[in-house]
Amino acid sequence: MLSNDNISYLKNTFSFWSKIDKETQDKIIQNTTTVKYKKGETIYSPNKECLGVILIKKGELRTYILSNEGKEVTLYRLLNDDICILSSSCVLKNITFDVYIDAQKNTEILLVNSYIFSELINKNIYIENFALKTAVDKFSNVMWTIEQILFMKFDTRLAIFLLDEVSKLNSNTIKITHEQIGKYIGGAREVVSRMLKYFEQEEIIKLSRGSIEVINKNKLKSLL
Amino acid sequence: MLSNDNISYLKNTFSFWSKIDKETQDKIIQNTTTVKYKKGETIYSPNKECLGVILIKKGELRTYILSNEGKEVTLYRLLNDDICILSSSCVLKNITFDVYIDAQKNTEILLVNSYIFSELINKNIYIENFALKTAVDKFSNVMWTIEQILFMKFDTRLAIFLLDEVSKLNSNTIKITHEQIGKYIGGAREVVSRMLKYFEQEEIIKLSRGSIEVINKNKLKSLL
Repeated sequence: MLSNDNISYLKNTFSFWSKIDKETQDKIIQNTTTVKYKKGETIYSPNKECLGVILIKKGELRTYILSNEGKEVTLYRLLNDDICILSSSCVLKNITFDVYIDAQKNTEILLVNSYIFSELINKNIYIENFALKTAVDKFSNVMWTIEQILFMKFDTRLAIFLLDEVSKLNSNTIKITHEQIGKYIGGAREVVSRMLKYFEQEEIIKLSRGSIEVINKNKLKSLL
Repeated sequence: MLSNDNISYLKNTFSFWSKIDKETQDKIIQNTTTVKYKKGETIYSPNKECLGVILIKKGELRTYILSNEGKEVTLYRLLNDDICILSSSCVLKNITFDVYIDAQKNTEILLVNSYIFSELINKNIYIENFALKTAVDKFSNVMWTIEQILFMKFDTRLAIFLLDEVSKLNSNTIKITHEQIGKYIGGAREVVSRMLKYFEQEEIIKLSRGSIEVINKNKLKSLL
């Protein structure tokens, strides 16, 4: 049974809560579980069974697509209080593609059973509406990413990534491998390494084993 | 005033029609116009005013994004009886990106005024639901395209394009420029020309001024 805290969390996150009857509310509560994922775990992939609707209480998930040759492209990241509906793409018949989802940090979620959610979507237009809106939000995220990948110059993409990390971490030192950066911004490790080396020569960053220190933020911003 | 034919068309296309009252139906009818576009016209772009919801009676529209440097990527094409909601992205606040839309053929549409549609979306959940579903359908189309562009080998993409055209036109001869193909499948004209030349050497196609004849469909299929 869910704790009262988690029930409140459900109520606050599901904006349709006041539009559904007590019975439906109880059904959702009874079919929601708490799950913890370890950093690095793949929590969803196209060959896995439809997982359910994810409410991220704490942590970070990364949604990506993967080619047959193993090339990854990150579509977007999900942070605290985000909702993930693509982990339950079976519930929306208009979603005909499938994604991978990894935990980027130790992550705590609430997971609503996909069969129950699917049943409720078919019965209640407010719930269907909520699911569709969540999907359309992600459509906007994906379009943004795609424009970055297809149109932007690599130095700009890398600069944006580094500035984002610095502001998110509230620190000028970013602990990350060149390969991980490549996954995030869509590029081969060698290309990332080459560009980072260039940034170092330009005295924008300082490279050391496993981490990058941003030493001239203004110069980095000038690349945007 | 719309003709009876066009009113029937509205009723059949808007699956929410039976769920809305007579007054709302009349409001939609009064705020819908017929518009004709000439082949090649740009009918919508991010700097134009929100156009409205488009119902394609006959013809073909192409939806694409455009970089600052003029690079185009086709997201999807819209054919007879398709609905376009992105031409009215102002009506859905979850859509935060903008696209270009061109007429690929002489095209006849019904255009529902975006302010009226926006007002109705806010008032009626069935209409909102319909708009969201239409957007999510396009999300799926875009994801398919993106996977083609990011992951597939260029020869495969070109082969798929040629086979699609042959089956659509019901003819082995395709009248199209290499530049147009590049726009459709996301690649520079030179790359398209090089690959077509290679296909010709392989005796898959025969090139002549302004057209491509597919002479060995099986060999083309073997590239998929």
